[in-house]
Amino acid sequence: MTTEGQVHLVGAGPGDPELLTLRAHRLLSEADVIVYDRLVSPEIMALIPAATRRISVGKATSHHTMPQEAINRLLVDLARQGLNVVRLKGGDPLIFGRGSEEAEALRDAGIAHDYVPGITAAQGAASTTGVPLTHRGLATGVRYVTGHRAADAALDLDWDGLARPDTTLVIYMGAATMAAIAAELIRRGRPADLPAMAVASATTPREARVVSTLSQVAEEAAGLEAPVLFIVGEVVSLCVAQPLPELLTDLPMVANA
Amino acid sequence: MTTEGQVHLVGAGPGDPELLTLRAHRLLSEADVIVYDRLVSPEIMALIPAATRRISVGKATSHHTMPQEAINRLLVDLARQGLNVVRLKGGDPLIFGRGSEEAEALRDAGIAHDYVPGITAAQGAASTTGVPLTHRGLATGVRYVTGHRAADAALDLDWDGLARPDTTLVIYMGAATMAAIAAELIRRGRPADLPAMAVASATTPREARVVSTLSQVAEEAAGLEAPVLFIVGEVVSLCVAQPLPELLTDLPMVANA
Repeated sequence: MTTEGQVHLVGAGPGDPELLTLRAHRLLSEADVIVYDRLVSPEIMALIPAATRRISVGKATSHHTMPQEAINRLLVDLARQGLNVVRLKGGDPLIFGRGSEEAEALRDAGIAHDYVPGITAAQGAASTTGVPLTHRGLATGVRYVTGHRAADAALDLDWDGLARPDTTLVIYMGAATMAAIAAELIRRGRPADLPAMAVASATTPREARVVSTLSQVAEEAAGLEAPVLFIVGEVVSLCVAQPLPELLTDLPMVANA
Repeated sequence: MTTEGQVHLVGAGPGDPELLTLRAHRLLSEADVIVYDRLVSPEIMALIPAATRRISVGKATSHHTMPQEAINRLLVDLARQGLNVVRLKGGDPLIFGRGSEEAEALRDAGIAHDYVPGITAAQGAASTTGVPLTHRGLATGVRYVTGHRAADAALDLDWDGLARPDTTLVIYMGAATMAAIAAELIRRGRPADLPAMAVASATTPREARVVSTLSQVAEEAAGLEAPVLFIVGEVVSLCVAQPLPELLTDLPMVANA
């Protein structure tokens, strides 16, 4: 290591610490400081040595989230102090993770950085529920969209494309808008009884699922705690009530480098 | 471990062994036998202890690939011998991996099985090229499709949906059909000069990239060796010529359990 700072934009995966990549696990052990947000599970945060500095930049309510520009500045400042920074994000930094916005700020500031992909929530939910994202005869492809919208903005989605029967549709951050999305998909011709599911905190001990239909899933999932992912499509009919994966309790602690 | 056999359907990720999940790495160490196909990188196969039995079910040319039904039977047979089987697949078993077809055969045979997700090729290519799959203002979502088609079958894709400007399009197994896909997308209104790239063997020492346009990318990528992934969309304009990631040479060998 030189004294020059650097930033690793690292995906933490969906929550189960054993779904960290080997590289993410190593970088956590080498970091001087970890900048994380609310989608990183407590089980993963528990792996980080107590002596490692950690900075939270997002809490459960959006009111306490640091603006993106402030996060960008923070990363630049920490790297300029010569620190080895891990920017730890739930899922994958380049799928709804805004990792590329942070990378642009780092590039503009001349700071070395790289990406480490992570298992995204759709993959985590697929693995624990047994619902494939593609399956011969049911789905020839998969599509990830976000139900999140800026305050006062209308949902501007490609409705006709979303209503295609041969594509599994995964909606991230859709808790507030799923009812409207479902209604519009039905209006565009998708069957009201199309299989649909909601999965909260997939791959963690808090995982909860609602297996339902397009017309009912938003209402039935109303009690789930965030983060909630929706999966819509014939593939949901393959859902099997698999036992939740055992979380290892003897995962190797990350050693402070 | 009981003497009852089981099958883990495990994603090996895009090729870099450090992008294995901790769980995949552990299961490789515990397996009695590993059933793998051609998309698993040699770097990952090299991690497996020499004494562990390994069975290849797919070679570089489709002519030497074991039919899916024979793979299903093999997995059932091995598990019935009481073996702990890892079915190792490139990428993620539930994204173009046919993991759910194998799971159906295992369920029908009453054999315990589970899934371990893996980093899919799109995520690997995004991380090494710096091309995000979503990015505010450029892509509100991402879509994975396959360019593979059965012999003599026409490509039956959702062309209008694929031609949407706000979605990053990732085409798996498209080497043979990318020129036809690009021509059709242009006919449906996508600009001929839309940024598009091809990435071969992302995250491995064999990674090669062509950054081009929709109209040119298939021709320019003709010399790349499989597997080749295509990424189409404005996000490709963010491609930065990042150095390839250093492959660790001191990755912990998997110990035979």
